[in-house]
Amino acid sequence: MASDEITGISCPVPQVSNEKITLGHGSGGLLTHELITKIFLKEFDNDYLNMSHDGAVFISGTQKLAFTTDTFVVNPLFFPGGNIGDLAVNGTVNDLAMCGAVPMFLSAGFIIEEGFSQEDLKKIVHSMKAAAVNCGVSIITGDTKVVEKGKGDKLFINTSGIGLVQDGIDISPKRIAPGDKIILSGSIADHGIAVLAARENLNFRTEVHSDTAAVHDIINKLLQVCKDVHVLRDPTRGGVAGTLNELARSGQVSIFIDEVRVKVKEEVNSACEILGFDPLYVANEGKFICILPGSEAEEALKVIRSFKYGNDAEIIGDVRAENPGRVILHTRLGTKRVLEMLSGDQLPRIC
Amino acid sequence: MASDEITGISCPVPQVSNEKITLGHGSGGLLTHELITKIFLKEFDNDYLNMSHDGAVFISGTQKLAFTTDTFVVNPLFFPGGNIGDLAVNGTVNDLAMCGAVPMFLSAGFIIEEGFSQEDLKKIVHSMKAAAVNCGVSIITGDTKVVEKGKGDKLFINTSGIGLVQDGIDISPKRIAPGDKIILSGSIADHGIAVLAARENLNFRTEVHSDTAAVHDIINKLLQVCKDVHVLRDPTRGGVAGTLNELARSGQVSIFIDEVRVKVKEEVNSACEILGFDPLYVANEGKFICILPGSEAEEALKVIRSFKYGNDAEIIGDVRAENPGRVILHTRLGTKRVLEMLSGDQLPRIC
Repeated sequence: MASDEITGISCPVPQVSNEKITLGHGSGGLLTHELITKIFLKEFDNDYLNMSHDGAVFISGTQKLAFTTDTFVVNPLFFPGGNIGDLAVNGTVNDLAMCGAVPMFLSAGFIIEEGFSQEDLKKIVHSMKAAAVNCGVSIITGDTKVVEKGKGDKLFINTSGIGLVQDGIDISPKRIAPGDKIILSGSIADHGIAVLAARENLNFRTEVHSDTAAVHDIINKLLQVCKDVHVLRDPTRGGVAGTLNELARSGQVSIFIDEVRVKVKEEVNSACEILGFDPLYVANEGKFICILPGSEAEEALKVIRSFKYGNDAEIIGDVRAENPGRVILHTRLGTKRVLEMLSGDQLPRIC
Repeated sequence: MASDEITGISCPVPQVSNEKITLGHGSGGLLTHELITKIFLKEFDNDYLNMSHDGAVFISGTQKLAFTTDTFVVNPLFFPGGNIGDLAVNGTVNDLAMCGAVPMFLSAGFIIEEGFSQEDLKKIVHSMKAAAVNCGVSIITGDTKVVEKGKGDKLFINTSGIGLVQDGIDISPKRIAPGDKIILSGSIADHGIAVLAARENLNFRTEVHSDTAAVHDIINKLLQVCKDVHVLRDPTRGGVAGTLNELARSGQVSIFIDEVRVKVKEEVNSACEILGFDPLYVANEGKFICILPGSEAEEALKVIRSFKYGNDAEIIGDVRAENPGRVILHTRLGTKRVLEMLSGDQLPRIC
């Protein structure tokens, strides 16, 4: 096979009943995309939602604010590197940062299953507090519901957030343009593998830790230096490949990435090989993708690498005009491969 | 017994394990209060949360914004008069209104149980849209998670909201003062009874309908006419008695109410008698309590009654300095009775 030939993984949409929600609808892949488009966007059609952002940006008086929401159903609640509490704070802080906003305020909504341990709840709430302090945000409003035993799963947490969008920033998938470079802030797949290992009691030689972390301070600095960033996105559910697919579709461009430039820790890679996962599709919770004009990429990389949670950043690829909607991987072997959006579910309930 | 003697219903805190969450912790009563105080407020201590409001109010540039969150776990999802969708929109719109804010934007976070009907999801999302249009708010950001069958209960919805607080408005339980009057916007207990009847397949001679409705337009007009409103609160979980107890504690005052002035529809009253519920403790979803200086009460009542969802409003009582923290009912029989905050759960999962 010639190295410039593109081969695709065959990813047929699984034959699921159209009438019932499946786990795949929560995967961040094709079924989630369909559910959102056919049910939610169909009804809630408005300019904010249609921006296909990690959050919505609106004008309040003289300011631009970002507003985002995320519900966390991770199982198990505690995993190496974190728990549902810091995950819920970091996740929403990151979603605000991906809108180009400085995170300010969070809400917290708890659904607790009857019989859940108050001690565990205390630990989780304590982690939320610590994460909030670390991010400089305050949790200023909340709600608690309790459901009967067997009608929930220990604890679900919704965090919604408000942030202040910095002046002169315009983050939108619509702005992606051929010639843009793609920066990935660090090594991938840590979170998904850490959660799965904890859930299934898998013991790898080296324990994999979740990368859950807030990256708002990196973004804050980055946007001061490179105001023309086109897109920021955290590759959570669906991983880097899922996120890039969404962006290629929204921006009507193709995205080329180099496999050799995408870092995967050795222990994570081994785990992925054993479990049969492609790390490109595994969730991250402390990484981001930045797409910006090629001319600014080196400067941006320097800024990102100056931070602890960005010191493994790399320019992993670029944006092109041909084959709009496609994400194409230059493999280690010198071949090219289409990275499809996953249709079903690879790893349920990792966030 | 002399008519001015006060008798209390004995309401001991039930002997529950300190270490496990019980349904009572979600009741809106004493256990909820303890949970919030001992676990959430202990960690998330800040001026916004400590205001003990239905939402938080913060300054954004030149504007005052309100931010609130509510998770809906009502069972069943559909009940006479509404469903979880319009309930989730109206509920958060009302919470914003209770902060003296004009509701603007909502987020929607869905936790869907695997196997849930897409048709039902469509109906619910359609109701959310209709309720949002009716309230003049847009749902601008969202999130969807799917959990395995048996790990949720069909559908839970979180809505968070942002609203613009009108100029010159200062709503806070701390402002309650002796001499204030208490207005209740209509008849009580419809929602809780409607949901319970639907859940348990109870057939009353006259079907009870939920009162789910948005009251933001009443509040909007009320605050234009009576700027000195001290408190607004919607008596949802825990009902009117639960809400007044919270307010009496926060404001360190006593609240006296006249039983004869609290309206209960005949069919609702019959249902409460059959089921052994005190309507004062049953949830409402389209009513509010307004506490304001006595001198403004008649004018406020006129405004509230001019609206469809306020035409049954009454001044039901007043605020006094004696016995701070107490809520006292002047009964139909001419006696006085302390209305305690419920310790356990009267009706789980009504919102």
